[in-house]
Amino acid sequence: MKTYNFYAGPAILAEEVKKQAAQAALEYENTGLSLMEMSHRSAEVTAIMEEAVALTRELLNIPEGYRVLFLQGGASLQFYMTALNLLDSGKTAAYVDTGAWSKKAIKEAKRCGGVDVVASSSDKNYNYIPKNIDVPASAPYVHITTNNTIFGTQFQEIPDFDVPVVADMSSDIFSRPIDVSKYDVIYAGAQKNMGPAGATLVIVREGALGKVTRELPSMLDYRLFIEKNSLFNTGPVFSIYVSLLTLRWIKKNGGVEGMVNRNTEKANLLYEAIDNHPLFYGTAAKEDRSKMNVCFLLHEPSRSDEFLSACADAGIVGVKGHRSVGGFRASIYNAMDLAGVRQLVKVMESFQ
Amino acid sequence: MKTYNFYAGPAILAEEVKKQAAQAALEYENTGLSLMEMSHRSAEVTAIMEEAVALTRELLNIPEGYRVLFLQGGASLQFYMTALNLLDSGKTAAYVDTGAWSKKAIKEAKRCGGVDVVASSSDKNYNYIPKNIDVPASAPYVHITTNNTIFGTQFQEIPDFDVPVVADMSSDIFSRPIDVSKYDVIYAGAQKNMGPAGATLVIVREGALGKVTRELPSMLDYRLFIEKNSLFNTGPVFSIYVSLLTLRWIKKNGGVEGMVNRNTEKANLLYEAIDNHPLFYGTAAKEDRSKMNVCFLLHEPSRSDEFLSACADAGIVGVKGHRSVGGFRASIYNAMDLAGVRQLVKVMESFQ
Ligand SMILES: Cc1ncc(COP(=O)(O)O)c(C=O)c1O
Ligand SMILES: Cc1ncc(COP(=O)(O)O)c(C=O)c1O
Ligand SMILES: [Mg+2]
Ligand SMILES: [Mg+2]
Ligand SMILES: [Mg+2]
Ligand SMILES: [Mg+2]
Repeated sequence: MKTYNFYAGPAILAEEVKKQAAQAALEYENTGLSLMEMSHRSAEVTAIMEEAVALTRELLNIPEGYRVLFLQGGASLQFYMTALNLLDSGKTAAYVDTGAWSKKAIKEAKRCGGVDVVASSSDKNYNYIPKNIDVPASAPYVHITTNNTIFGTQFQEIPDFDVPVVADMSSDIFSRPIDVSKYDVIYAGAQKNMGPAGATLVIVREGALGKVTRELPSMLDYRLFIEKNSLFNTGPVFSIYVSLLTLRWIKKNGGVEGMVNRNTEKANLLYEAIDNHPLFYGTAAKEDRSKMNVCFLLHEPSRSDEFLSACADAGIVGVKGHRSVGGFRASIYNAMDLAGVRQLVKVMESFQ
Repeated sequence: MKTYNFYAGPAILAEEVKKQAAQAALEYENTGLSLMEMSHRSAEVTAIMEEAVALTRELLNIPEGYRVLFLQGGASLQFYMTALNLLDSGKTAAYVDTGAWSKKAIKEAKRCGGVDVVASSSDKNYNYIPKNIDVPASAPYVHITTNNTIFGTQFQEIPDFDVPVVADMSSDIFSRPIDVSKYDVIYAGAQKNMGPAGATLVIVREGALGKVTRELPSMLDYRLFIEKNSLFNTGPVFSIYVSLLTLRWIKKNGGVEGMVNRNTEKANLLYEAIDNHPLFYGTAAKEDRSKMNVCFLLHEPSRSDEFLSACADAGIVGVKGHRSVGGFRASIYNAMDLAGVRQLVKVMESFQ
């Protein structure tokens, strides 16, 4: 039986990516070596790093003045690292609180400087995206979480803020075109839309750096990683390579424009099934619905296990909702195809 | 032609480990999913994490009171993180300077508190291990680098210090038995003796934590990772799994006792070849020679490229020495077998 992977992260990878990754784990390009046992300073790994950067630039249309880094530590380390690099202790940055991940970003930023929570949707268990957000012009940046993995909401458009944006795009990077010039930093753990856990993508405007007065520990200083093309120390080579394989797959499938079309079609299909079904309902405000993480509940929660076991019988894994929302969450990242969503819809439709 | 992998890190993995890793990249244990696309909270990944911890405890005979963590960031992040967690700003820790990595550890520790460099071998380009090291009883710990990857020296015995030891064992972890009770923290990037880049092993005595007065960023606080069994955030699952495969391989091959025997035999063979050969000589003081990284030079350095190309012709990769020593470095970690060392010796012997 085919398995349909709806995990929220680590998450689905394209079939051809898995095959190529397995080959590289065994032997990389007739070198006689696994990619996992090759020096990060070897010609082969250097070429991988360069292509990963170049393809990121191409797919996201990144302008001059920005640098692309592949780091370790996950998005959670970026919560701290972005603030450490950009928020001086006398200053106050603006943060938009749209869920659990925003809250964690806020917590870590407070260790570095002032934090002004300029908007929050905590009043409704984060089921919407705040509108008309006012950001003081004095803020060095405003931090947003573009897609809220747990609550299934997403900024449909990035508002026009008057200050640079720092964005956690962990769960929707490469899912749609973005205007990089609005941002000072974009970061994303690889393990949702890009690759396996262990690599973290950071896109940073060089001009935004070097302005804080504190001394930075080497491993938390973007400038050192820029200087060393991400390899200030040994990088997570295999995770970066699998991310590169995914970037190639995205390019082959129409780039981020191809992805947004595909993602819109999948999301429409699934939300329609939820809306039309008498037993299910969506949790997120309609206009803020995520195209990546679709959260829905049963009007009769007592039947949840029954639905989960119907999913399991159909080869569907990973649809149990996060405990802070309950119910179900179908994560339909780039690599999920329409057939996977159709399979889930079929199970929903037979569930009466 | 077979390839013989002498890279210093990322470094050689056992053949069966590569095969099993490739299988897991394609599909993990009949789940229909690649291990790279499975939630870090899934039953499968939980079992991997638990076995990796249990096997680390078993192989290193770790006593009660210690915790085993698998983190991200490499040993370089540990340079800072150990000091941040153990060295209060009013205190002065003792550091032994035996090479480039020790120096980096010292640099990062200075951001946290006082650093007293109690011994150094920098006077002779780090070609020996200082003896009779005096550590003030007031030091919260003494930091050592047990094996100096770049300079090819190694503590043969860990001295009896009067204070707890913090040790960077990046390049000799699992290569020999150790007495964990001497240490407050042991850390090691996986990518030499354990697995691919991207995972970092930390063994920490719980009683040593919680004594500094500073507030710790979440991602740099050992206690949070202890509380969450290493998964405070998404861990580098695939790298940890490949490390687990290596730990199983170590156990099957006699544990760390089996490893030290094997490593001693390999190192003896290679050092003997260097000593007996009229054209080559070793760089490290004989009594401090590393069993992991064997550094040697040609009396006529102008013939270096000739030797490297003879190596390449024999399928040998990764023997170019680090620029701070020059010449050649053969890294002969656990997974290197005697046949690999014999191949290198053969090339040396034909080089006249
Ligand atoms: C939006 C968002 N931000 C941050 C994180 C944390 O990422 P990591 O586990 O890589 O630290 C996640 C998911 O885990 C996420 O979905
Ligand atoms: C002894 C030692 N310590 C630290 C490091 C740095 O490790 P990482 O690159 O994982 O930060 C290395 C090697 O790279 C090493 O050999
Ligand atoms: Mg969220
Ligand atoms: Mg409905
Ligand atoms: Mg060294
Ligand atoms: Mg000689």
